[in-house]
Amino acid sequence: MRETFLETIVPATGKLGVLTVGLGAVASTFIAGVELVRQGLAQPIGSLTQLGTVDGARIRDLVPLADLDQLVFGAWDPFPDNAYEAALRCGVLDRYVHIEPIAAALKEIEPMPAAFDQAYVRRLDGTNVKSKATKRELAEAIRADIRGFKAANACDRLVVIWCASTEVYLEPSPAHESLKAFEAALDADDQNIPPSMLYAYAALKEGVPFLNGAPNLTTDVPAMVELAHINQVPIGGKDFKTGQTLVKTALAPMLKTRMLGLAGWYSTNILGNRDGEVLDDPDSFRTKERSKLGVLEHILEPERHPELYGDFHHQVRINYYPPRGDQKEGWDNIDIVGWLGYPMQIKVDFLCRDSILAAPLVLDLVLFTDLAQRAGRTGVQDWLSFYFKDPQATSEHDLFAQRATLENTLRGLRG
Amino acid sequence: MRETFLETIVPATGKLGVLTVGLGAVASTFIAGVELVRQGLAQPIGSLTQLGTVDGARIRDLVPLADLDQLVFGAWDPFPDNAYEAALRCGVLDRYVHIEPIAAALKEIEPMPAAFDQAYVRRLDGTNVKSKATKRELAEAIRADIRGFKAANACDRLVVIWCASTEVYLEPSPAHESLKAFEAALDADDQNIPPSMLYAYAALKEGVPFLNGAPNLTTDVPAMVELAHINQVPIGGKDFKTGQTLVKTALAPMLKTRMLGLAGWYSTNILGNRDGEVLDDPDSFRTKERSKLGVLEHILEPERHPELYGDFHHQVRINYYPPRGDQKEGWDNIDIVGWLGYPMQIKVDFLCRDSILAAPLVLDLVLFTDLAQRAGRTGVQDWLSFYFKDPQATSEHDLFAQRATLENTLRGLRG
Amino acid sequence: MRETFLETIVPATGKLGVLTVGLGAVASTFIAGVELVRQGLAQPIGSLTQLGTVDGARIRDLVPLADLDQLVFGAWDPFPDNAYEAALRCGVLDRYVHIEPIAAALKEIEPMPAAFDQAYVRRLDGTNVKSKATKRELAEAIRADIRGFKAANACDRLVVIWCASTEVYLEPSPAHESLKAFEAALDADDQNIPPSMLYAYAALKEGVPFLNGAPNLTTDVPAMVELAHINQVPIGGKDFKTGQTLVKTALAPMLKTRMLGLAGWYSTNILGNRDGEVLDDPDSFRTKERSKLGVLEHILEPERHPELYGDFHHQVRINYYPPRGDQKEGWDNIDIVGWLGYPMQIKVDFLCRDSILAAPLVLDLVLFTDLAQRAGRTGVQDWLSFYFKDPQATSEHDLFAQRATLENTLRGLRG
Amino acid sequence: MRETFLETIVPATGKLGVLTVGLGAVASTFIAGVELVRQGLAQPIGSLTQLGTVDGARIRDLVPLADLDQLVFGAWDPFPDNAYEAALRCGVLDRYVHIEPIAAALKEIEPMPAAFDQAYVRRLDGTNVKSKATKRELAEAIRADIRGFKAANACDRLVVIWCASTEVYLEPSPAHESLKAFEAALDADDQNIPPSMLYAYAALKEGVPFLNGAPNLTTDVPAMVELAHINQVPIGGKDFKTGQTLVKTALAPMLKTRMLGLAGWYSTNILGNRDGEVLDDPDSFRTKERSKLGVLEHILEPERHPELYGDFHHQVRINYYPPRGDQKEGWDNIDIVGWLGYPMQIKVDFLCRDSILAAPLVLDLVLFTDLAQRAGRTGVQDWLSFYFKDPQATSEHDLFAQRATLENTLRGLRG
Repeated sequence: MRETFLETIVPATGKLGVLTVGLGAVASTFIAGVELVRQGLAQPIGSLTQLGTVDGARIRDLVPLADLDQLVFGAWDPFPDNAYEAALRCGVLDRYVHIEPIAAALKEIEPMPAAFDQAYVRRLDGTNVKSKATKRELAEAIRADIRGFKAANACDRLVVIWCASTEVYLEPSPAHESLKAFEAALDADDQNIPPSMLYAYAALKEGVPFLNGAPNLTTDVPAMVELAHINQVPIGGKDFKTGQTLVKTALAPMLKTRMLGLAGWYSTNILGNRDGEVLDDPDSFRTKERSKLGVLEHILEPERHPELYGDFHHQVRINYYPPRGDQKEGWDNIDIVGWLGYPMQIKVDFLCRDSILAAPLVLDLVLFTDLAQRAGRTGVQDWLSFYFKDPQATSEHDLFAQRATLENTLRGLRG
Repeated sequence: MRETFLETIVPATGKLGVLTVGLGAVASTFIAGVELVRQGLAQPIGSLTQLGTVDGARIRDLVPLADLDQLVFGAWDPFPDNAYEAALRCGVLDRYVHIEPIAAALKEIEPMPAAFDQAYVRRLDGTNVKSKATKRELAEAIRADIRGFKAANACDRLVVIWCASTEVYLEPSPAHESLKAFEAALDADDQNIPPSMLYAYAALKEGVPFLNGAPNLTTDVPAMVELAHINQVPIGGKDFKTGQTLVKTALAPMLKTRMLGLAGWYSTNILGNRDGEVLDDPDSFRTKERSKLGVLEHILEPERHPELYGDFHHQVRINYYPPRGDQKEGWDNIDIVGWLGYPMQIKVDFLCRDSILAAPLVLDLVLFTDLAQRAGRTGVQDWLSFYFKDPQATSEHDLFAQRATLENTLRGLRG
Repeated sequence: MRETFLETIVPATGKLGVLTVGLGAVASTFIAGVELVRQGLAQPIGSLTQLGTVDGARIRDLVPLADLDQLVFGAWDPFPDNAYEAALRCGVLDRYVHIEPIAAALKEIEPMPAAFDQAYVRRLDGTNVKSKATKRELAEAIRADIRGFKAANACDRLVVIWCASTEVYLEPSPAHESLKAFEAALDADDQNIPPSMLYAYAALKEGVPFLNGAPNLTTDVPAMVELAHINQVPIGGKDFKTGQTLVKTALAPMLKTRMLGLAGWYSTNILGNRDGEVLDDPDSFRTKERSKLGVLEHILEPERHPELYGDFHHQVRINYYPPRGDQKEGWDNIDIVGWLGYPMQIKVDFLCRDSILAAPLVLDLVLFTDLAQRAGRTGVQDWLSFYFKDPQATSEHDLFAQRATLENTLRGLRG
Repeated sequence: MRETFLETIVPATGKLGVLTVGLGAVASTFIAGVELVRQGLAQPIGSLTQLGTVDGARIRDLVPLADLDQLVFGAWDPFPDNAYEAALRCGVLDRYVHIEPIAAALKEIEPMPAAFDQAYVRRLDGTNVKSKATKRELAEAIRADIRGFKAANACDRLVVIWCASTEVYLEPSPAHESLKAFEAALDADDQNIPPSMLYAYAALKEGVPFLNGAPNLTTDVPAMVELAHINQVPIGGKDFKTGQTLVKTALAPMLKTRMLGLAGWYSTNILGNRDGEVLDDPDSFRTKERSKLGVLEHILEPERHPELYGDFHHQVRINYYPPRGDQKEGWDNIDIVGWLGYPMQIKVDFLCRDSILAAPLVLDLVLFTDLAQRAGRTGVQDWLSFYFKDPQATSEHDLFAQRATLENTLRGLRG
């Protein structure tokens, strides 16, 4: 039985619209999964909001989250496939067990034309794209999409979440330094503004929270944080923490808590989905690499333990390997150092499924961010670092420390 | 610069005698390592007391621990090899780099005759054994050894730590239920009293802390806890948490914190040291297996999350495999379950070194237990569960939760 | 275009009946596969008779093999499930892609009651069993089944192949020494005669070739060889060479051809199918272990190369691990020795599918043995050692040497 | 007892000089090893010439090979370290067990200045280099070195073997098409002539066999083959077949002999020796990649078996990873396809030692090539393809087929 929640949190009444940027493997697996769970055909495994507990109580009894039945889905994608076609093409879900039984619901979700620009994602191309001439026009078109979706579906609130590809590497630039500079750059069609920033800007302008599941810069710049605070919207990112990095943020704390040294950590991945194809472009990979590499130094603190972590060699590789499809495999070799300097090795082979790991994160992030907005929390939600490879506004990468922060925030919201 | 410590803790002055039961791979690696560190020839990697920090401060600056220079070593073993010969035979340390430079110091450590009984460790035999006729006589002989060592080495305090083999499986029996019952059983030469209990009893009777690095029952019975409280001695156990279980207690929390399900966990080990040989006896293995199996259920709490952990298959195997010597390899296959029930696999191959992982635990346990005694903490030290596979008096197996408890205790001792 | 074959080989006209002992994972995967291939719904990958070449020519063009369209299937099994039900229950094949499209054909194959005796396979039980009182009666009942099947299906020829479980370990005994002794033992209900020998005896008495896919003794005794020669029937066995041993017989020759030494080879398996359950019984495992252990010594010839192979430690483990079902995983650690004695390690993790690997062997063995019979080759077919873990009547285990023998025999049959 | 050999082979009398290009990890491990074996301090494991048998007879009894005692060593290297210093620096051999006992012999081997050009090996630099101005002068200087070494050491015969780094990728060019064109290019200081060709040219001009342990073009051009025939010298190459490729050429034949399909093969390597550093340069890696990639297509013959091997994805990666030094680790993931198209995976983790695997190949190649020369065999020795990743003048990559060719040649030389 659900208890009374804090008065200061606006109740989760009405419909919550979820707009995914990208209707590929992650988004279609998330949407299909929610539908299957709603129909009692599968379990929302991997989702804290649905299964998790804090202090012995179900999280969903602790704080007022939207119910799965309240969710309505929309998406943008440069490919015109609807959610049914996308789910089939991506090959994540079993056709007969998990797609056909909900085919009707999936077919209804047709992607809106995307604000796509091949200059930022070179390995993809698409026909379902907006034909606007300028970045400003694209941003306005996205805003119109958001308003249109909200009206058409009678939504009470919305969340936009980036489930699309990794863009090429961008350095923070003066154009990102303030909202004013950003809007000037927008009007000038500045190349420092990639599509992901158009979506984020549009969402925030509409007062809609924006979450970033890729390592793109997007909201991780002062201009976006400023806009989020002005419009009182929560934001979160970046890069879903799924396979290899998830394991890394559990094992690195293990080494550190036992004061075992590290000589090297070599991580390689093989995957064959669209994400793998995009990351085969060195400029997109560079964005990803930055996201993946920081994690060890933040956890191990070489400056504090130079004798243990002052000189380790960390390497991350991603290989586009079509035979695997969405079934990513991450192989890690970890060269550790023990008593008197003796070397030992840990090898981890993670035969995971990229979208299966990401989908429950999408669900949790959507529900928690909607909660944050109703609770009046604006700007970067660093308590959601638990879900991100490269969390914005915090250097905490230790999975268990991140979980503790998340739990403390929930306790605070509980009162 | 060391700060002033709590007044209520007796200062760590004088010599601290460390008596290891067993002078095999673990004990000789521990002793040689301390000597090498003292001479500046190696680093005490893996040791919290030497390298660890809490709240940014070195632990050894936070609480008054004995210095390495204050340690004096003694041992019992059924083999007559001195520490130099033992280190050579065990093959853990590099002869020319880590044994010969400290040969003189190692040769001085000759084992006292052991209270050994092949009925409890069937795969070993030895000539350096006490010839006493009864268990009572053996216990008294050990007490005399302890007193003799303390006097001969002018020790201020002592700690006894079990670094010897796994005994055959014993169920707790009425003979273990109270000190009175235990002493009656001792006088009756009851088979429920294995050698490890003779050492523990002798130490506690002498007011000396006893630590148990094997999965043997030993102090994990009411009689010993009673005696520890009567004589105001701290005790701790059981079974050093080193290779595979160390990893398990980091990865299982990772699964749980993300609400990922578990279908099965298969763990196998190959090792070729004396420990492996002993565990080749099914009755000794049974003792070990109990210690290794409990860990997952305690962490995952199937009763709270039956949909995720209600039906997993956990199997642990140990294989005596001579080509490896002390270089144990643990291979784990973990069948996990994600979003909508999709299976994934994590495989971990840990090419570790049994004694290299255990040696710093011996050091930390000795120093922390000595601290506990000086701080007036008696009985089971559950804050040291961080170091044990099957911690006595607590069901906390999560490595990070254990670490938090340890830190909180240190903060408390700091005042 | 098929060429003219040797005159001395009887043409493969008419129907060829295939009777499998056991209608479990292997048999149902074999039968379903042949049906799918016949309908053009799948490829017979892994089958030499269907895809293999010798000297650039397709094998099926080189020698007169029966066509897939000529095969008719029957089976015995202690469980009453038909082939459709068995295929569903075993979980090897995808229900919607590979079972439902041929459901009608599979449902027609209903198992005849088995000559089952739990004394020889302790972990199984079944209701579809013959109720005959004596072993002689059981043998006669099987003979009647064979004749009945042949008549009912208008078969020209038959082959019987054991695709059932591993029986408990049996030593060769006097009862197996001659046909006369065997028949006396049969009449005496001697416990040295397990069910597998009843099937083999019945087949041979009917002039039908018998193949043994399990490590059971069965035809590997003088009595059966004698009967095979008397009745001019080919026989073959034992134990399908599928996952781990297949790899072993490729890697061990690699070591030897390069004169690399071997210190140890540790092999472990996890599997959760009925085979795994049966092998969980130590007495059944003993039979399997014998079959698996011999392979290295035969290939490496320690007596010829004592400095390289005189003292290696070989260990094989099988673990019943239900989460895996038929998807067996074999993990090998190989400790090799190089130049000047330096140790190196090779680890092989084979994520295989037991029945997927076995099914094409069943097909090839059936077709090749039928060929052998038509070519007048009787007794043990050692040229089929390529397919067996523990080939009868030859000590050749090197996979490539076995293949050469097979090819030479085919060339000989070609003329 | 050694038998009488074929009359047509010149006896192996006198000293055989072995000149290695490069005195790094491979060369120093080879030289130290021969010295240790001569002194009875170690075994020449991995060497066919020392331990191998053909038809039950030791190879060294079958054909007249030079004895280890007849070998004299020299080398060129851009670093001035002698063999003792090189062995210490490379960290392959245990200092106290395998270097110090033969320190005197190793210190005597000081490298001659190398014909080094950083344009072809960008990651290295050295001070011990020839200062000649032109390629022609360098070639003549090498010739003088060869003559000088032969005279100074009173050698009867010589062999030169490339044990140095991988050069940047070079396409065959018109300059390599004939001896005449080559010599014109030499005189013109043509950039198509890398240092390795200078060594090869010099050796062949002196009538000395040349072997190529790296993937460089070197002798794999018509000009060098022409010169070898004119001067009646045997040549051989290219690229020692050691770790990952060795395993690959055993496992790929296993797949093929069983008609198992291949969907993909991903190979990655981590190593931290000088070879790894050089291959970190993409242009050097390109040379290596070509050598490593061809192997699967040659063995699997996709054109003959398009349904099995018509579309596999093969990827090879090499990562410079300093923590490992010479202890290379190769990890392979092999996606295979079985009955009806079901996917399976084989993973191989080879914890090897690069130079330990290469050293016995150097020894065998030197002795067999010297034999070839005495037997009057000139030009490319394709029977030595057994030792090479990318054998010149043959497309046979199957390890066992290569061994058969080697054995047949030895039988032929035996008469």
